[in-house]
Amino acid sequence: MARSGNRTHDQIRDLKFTRNFTSHPAGSVLVECGLTRVLCTVTIQENVPPWLKGSNEGWVTAEYGMLPGSTNSRKPRDGRTGRVDGRSQEIQRLIGRCLRGIVDTRKLPEVTLWADCDVISADGGTRTAAINGACVALHDALSTMDLDDWPLRHLVSAISVGVVKNEVMVDLDYQEDHAAAVDMNVACVSDGRLVEVQGTAERSPFSNDQFQEMLALATKSCAHIHQLQQDALGFGE
Amino acid sequence: MARSGNRTHDQIRDLKFTRNFTSHPAGSVLVECGLTRVLCTVTIQENVPPWLKGSNEGWVTAEYGMLPGSTNSRKPRDGRTGRVDGRSQEIQRLIGRCLRGIVDTRKLPEVTLWADCDVISADGGTRTAAINGACVALHDALSTMDLDDWPLRHLVSAISVGVVKNEVMVDLDYQEDHAAAVDMNVACVSDGRLVEVQGTAERSPFSNDQFQEMLALATKSCAHIHQLQQDALGFGE
Amino acid sequence: MARSGNRTHDQIRDLKFTRNFTSHPAGSVLVECGLTRVLCTVTIQENVPPWLKGSNEGWVTAEYGMLPGSTNSRKPRDGRTGRVDGRSQEIQRLIGRCLRGIVDTRKLPEVTLWADCDVISADGGTRTAAINGACVALHDALSTMDLDDWPLRHLVSAISVGVVKNEVMVDLDYQEDHAAAVDMNVACVSDGRLVEVQGTAERSPFSNDQFQEMLALATKSCAHIHQLQQDALGFGE
Amino acid sequence: MARSGNRTHDQIRDLKFTRNFTSHPAGSVLVECGLTRVLCTVTIQENVPPWLKGSNEGWVTAEYGMLPGSTNSRKPRDGRTGRVDGRSQEIQRLIGRCLRGIVDTRKLPEVTLWADCDVISADGGTRTAAINGACVALHDALSTMDLDDWPLRHLVSAISVGVVKNEVMVDLDYQEDHAAAVDMNVACVSDGRLVEVQGTAERSPFSNDQFQEMLALATKSCAHIHQLQQDALGFGE
Amino acid sequence: MARSGNRTHDQIRDLKFTRNFTSHPAGSVLVECGLTRVLCTVTIQENVPPWLKGSNEGWVTAEYGMLPGSTNSRKPRDGRTGRVDGRSQEIQRLIGRCLRGIVDTRKLPEVTLWADCDVISADGGTRTAAINGACVALHDALSTMDLDDWPLRHLVSAISVGVVKNEVMVDLDYQEDHAAAVDMNVACVSDGRLVEVQGTAERSPFSNDQFQEMLALATKSCAHIHQLQQDALGFGE
Amino acid sequence: MARSGNRTHDQIRDLKFTRNFTSHPAGSVLVECGLTRVLCTVTIQENVPPWLKGSNEGWVTAEYGMLPGSTNSRKPRDGRTGRVDGRSQEIQRLIGRCLRGIVDTRKLPEVTLWADCDVISADGGTRTAAINGACVALHDALSTMDLDDWPLRHLVSAISVGVVKNEVMVDLDYQEDHAAAVDMNVACVSDGRLVEVQGTAERSPFSNDQFQEMLALATKSCAHIHQLQQDALGFGE
Repeated sequence: MARSGNRTHDQIRDLKFTRNFTSHPAGSVLVECGLTRVLCTVTIQENVPPWLKGSNEGWVTAEYGMLPGSTNSRKPRDGRTGRVDGRSQEIQRLIGRCLRGIVDTRKLPEVTLWADCDVISADGGTRTAAINGACVALHDALSTMDLDDWPLRHLVSAISVGVVKNEVMVDLDYQEDHAAAVDMNVACVSDGRLVEVQGTAERSPFSNDQFQEMLALATKSCAHIHQLQQDALGFGE
Repeated sequence: MARSGNRTHDQIRDLKFTRNFTSHPAGSVLVECGLTRVLCTVTIQENVPPWLKGSNEGWVTAEYGMLPGSTNSRKPRDGRTGRVDGRSQEIQRLIGRCLRGIVDTRKLPEVTLWADCDVISADGGTRTAAINGACVALHDALSTMDLDDWPLRHLVSAISVGVVKNEVMVDLDYQEDHAAAVDMNVACVSDGRLVEVQGTAERSPFSNDQFQEMLALATKSCAHIHQLQQDALGFGE
Repeated sequence: MARSGNRTHDQIRDLKFTRNFTSHPAGSVLVECGLTRVLCTVTIQENVPPWLKGSNEGWVTAEYGMLPGSTNSRKPRDGRTGRVDGRSQEIQRLIGRCLRGIVDTRKLPEVTLWADCDVISADGGTRTAAINGACVALHDALSTMDLDDWPLRHLVSAISVGVVKNEVMVDLDYQEDHAAAVDMNVACVSDGRLVEVQGTAERSPFSNDQFQEMLALATKSCAHIHQLQQDALGFGE
Repeated sequence: MARSGNRTHDQIRDLKFTRNFTSHPAGSVLVECGLTRVLCTVTIQENVPPWLKGSNEGWVTAEYGMLPGSTNSRKPRDGRTGRVDGRSQEIQRLIGRCLRGIVDTRKLPEVTLWADCDVISADGGTRTAAINGACVALHDALSTMDLDDWPLRHLVSAISVGVVKNEVMVDLDYQEDHAAAVDMNVACVSDGRLVEVQGTAERSPFSNDQFQEMLALATKSCAHIHQLQQDALGFGE
Repeated sequence: MARSGNRTHDQIRDLKFTRNFTSHPAGSVLVECGLTRVLCTVTIQENVPPWLKGSNEGWVTAEYGMLPGSTNSRKPRDGRTGRVDGRSQEIQRLIGRCLRGIVDTRKLPEVTLWADCDVISADGGTRTAAINGACVALHDALSTMDLDDWPLRHLVSAISVGVVKNEVMVDLDYQEDHAAAVDMNVACVSDGRLVEVQGTAERSPFSNDQFQEMLALATKSCAHIHQLQQDALGFGE
Repeated sequence: MARSGNRTHDQIRDLKFTRNFTSHPAGSVLVECGLTRVLCTVTIQENVPPWLKGSNEGWVTAEYGMLPGSTNSRKPRDGRTGRVDGRSQEIQRLIGRCLRGIVDTRKLPEVTLWADCDVISADGGTRTAAINGACVALHDALSTMDLDDWPLRHLVSAISVGVVKNEVMVDLDYQEDHAAAVDMNVACVSDGRLVEVQGTAERSPFSNDQFQEMLALATKSCAHIHQLQQDALGFGE
């Protein structure tokens, strides 16, 4: 089975960050990974959740949504059904944890940084694209603040790996994801340490060997993405 | 008061249509009007509302939303509040009526065309931008269908006019809209006939003279937009 | 086509205001327009929306609903579906704008006047009946307040006009509304200036000539309604 | 403590039924009991709940609501809060049981009779007024149907009784209800048999003697109301 | 018809209270009545409803729910339907009134005692089991508080009675309840006075004689349950 | 830091399965893991989700909830807030995937098996306790069905591991979970292969070495739990 773009099994799709995509939010990044496109904005609000009131500490949270036209068959809006579907909730909790994993919230004033990740076009890997893009947008949003201490300890990058037709491959597109026997998402910081590991047997259980192979491939790809994020942010220029 | 982009009072902002902006929907148009950007997608679904079941007739409907990061202060998602705010409902009903005003739904099979208008960046005039973009996307979506009879009778174009500091002006941006004493939206078809007229006194009632001046200016601008829509669709090439 | 009550095309239905219809609210008016009956109550609450807190200014807002038995086929309650339907939202926003258009809210203390318009029986023209009745109830509610400066600058009256079988006619009942090619609602103040103009092509676009004919007829009828409101309020007695 | 209208303890308030109050529903009764006014409409729908599909049997159900302006402090609409408050649910279940207690639903075709009881003005006793009025409206609605067998076995009438300042009294108004140590609602059929008995200690438990005194007074009053219902329906004329 | 457990008509099912069933809540009682099992927990929260703020008085309230697996056919969760069904609301209001009927809330500080009654297994009589168990849990919760004045004036016990095949019997199980022509729930305090009486004709009205017979049987059974509650609480030991 | 029950770092808490805890559901298991107690019921419904209609295949799904009194501070019910919180959604999706990972749904008729996991008392590890108990309840529910082919391919067992004060330990209670720098949940089948791996950095990223140590410890503990499940099911007797 040839991969889209004639990629090898250990190769991610073209990944592109467009900063300042829109003008209102403090951070605004369009991230494109193959045909998957996610708009990641970070807005700063002058309040914190109840449990942080008076703590002199900030908060970082995320929301994830898919535009109705982002998928093959139209996705009804949450606002019309009156509830957030479970998959979206699971994903936005993942994004939020990843972002909080790289920010020292004690170095923020009592503000909330809202990372909104809205999928404009979906072709697999929307949650990891969202993490990659939101990380860059978070950096940009923090740069607009007047802070004594820089609270961003790392960049976080994420990628999917899976087992498709008994082969381990990275950055699955929709077709591959649909055919995968195992689906895994990994998020790392710049030094290779792990922030999130989520592996799921879609059809049958997977062996520890397969798991280790997937983990190694994901870690390597995250390091590559990390470099692309740094380039996008102009580090080293 | 100088207008943004040094426009004259009867001049609209730069208006640009990017067709095929995303790949899944049958029609997908990014419309940009100054800093206002709206993604308009049209998706075809193989069913109709209950009252049209068995009628051998189709339906056209619209939904409108604003991304959380599209405005200056973050806009909470509908799905989290559990309800669609009144302004969004009013706007999506307006868009739907405008689109149904140009389609002969009896020439459609029993399908529903969903026009989703999602505001990516807002600077005034999002509802009229949505109508202009959705019209082009609707054209593109209909072009993908295998139809005996072309159901699109006209193009529809729309624009806002208002009275700001006692002067009538067209295509108000956010600042102008905020300062307007009268706010009006007009939608026309290609021959200049009217589809929708909605005028509202924001602060004090307006005279018939002011109303006629606004109507004339809007009608003229709609004709101009109509030309831009035709260009975008490659008519006459 | 003969009109109900053998009306001419420029004649509105019998319009009757019963003040003090119920005892609790500060203003309580039953308005009857032919078979259409709407109970309009205005209640004064000792608080304002968040954006007016501390402004020393008041607010006027409206809600609109239809009783389940008000229409031919029973209308389910909002409370059971968990959401307000789009049509009701659109109408209550219209009523609210019309009322705010005649009140100088800076002359109110920090209170909210709630105009509740509940349709008891519907036969077309419920939204314009609601505006006409709520205006009278608002006057009565303001009269119960101890105000230094009278905040009501005008009375507002409203009427529907439409094109039915190519003829322009005023104050459409349900049957006429159903058959109308164009449907328009106009709200005016006492000196004839406009507060709201909403014209919609139901089937095909309408010409500027038709529009002007409708506007003139509506304006004339509003002046007549204005007189009836004054009579109901006992002005000139 | 003098009672409103100088009533004696065993005397109900003036009770008046206006039939055909509105024109759309099959039955439409405005019931007035002192200052309490409830509009009771009965609509016939051509379907039944899932558990009766195919049973060749009908159903009777009720809904109860209060208009926002019906009480002293404005009551928010259910549709805006997204849920039905517990008190309304409890009351509409009571009304539904009372109506089903007098109809032989096996003599109905597969239709649902919806009794909607909407409080226009509240001064205590809205639930019993609703039962009294809905019974008359139900009779009128059934009269419009083409039925082989008359399904209404009885009329149902209801009244409140309570203990106020150690005295047992009937048909409590809002002030009395507020001061009552015990609050009880009783519904009877024409021969004096009971359909519903609901007694609640508001402050302290009540003795069996008090209970028996209340029950006797309620039963007597129900017989009187029964007569008024018959008069309203023109029985014996 | 033999009764489950070969009970006589005036005999209740085995009734058992397990105190301290779980460890977090201030009071936690598993009550078992035949196959019916309800977990009653009482939690103390350091706030009161708005209308008691600053009153130096406490509040007691109850919520009732059924686990999805507690009934024969799975009961969908409230949280998934987005609303509390009417029956649950009616029952939890009943429980709340019964508990408030035995507590002098003026002797509580500004706290709310939440009695949560969750049905683990249902075989009729869940609401009366809940009252019996919540009373014991409330006693235990109050015992953990440092109170100057003991606010519990009585114990409250409750039982169902009904008419099944023309025989009056007490403590109906699900089968009996389903077959009952009359269904009644009675709650008493220790001295036999009444807190709640709720009788409902399920099929046909009931006579005063039947009613008195049911009331007498219920009162006698409540006295027996009262003794079991005292035993469970170790009174007299 | 001594562990509750003087456990060693690689030792799980006492784990106990009570089968047939309630009588209505096809499978009903109370699982206790230290102070954590979860009631797992499996109900069989004679329908499938829309996408399986006509497929001659069954479905397995799960729902998770916490009783209000199960935690230290009372947890509000979903039904009252109108939505399912994100954590519950995430957990029930995890349970559902684990159960579907061990069932060959093609060997089921068109039925849905609902696994309801309701937390009665929470002290950490409720999601893994739920998986362990639901697996046993699922086995019992399948045993009540008349199936040609046994669809259960494995048992699934799950456990939490974490890094607390730089030490890797298994089966964290609430206190340990609260203090953990890394939190991980692992689900395995009987032969040691993996069904789910979910690792999250709560405070700072974790190294691959820590990850491998946690994974090994979790896998070993799952094998032990697997044995306890077999014992509870009476395998080998």
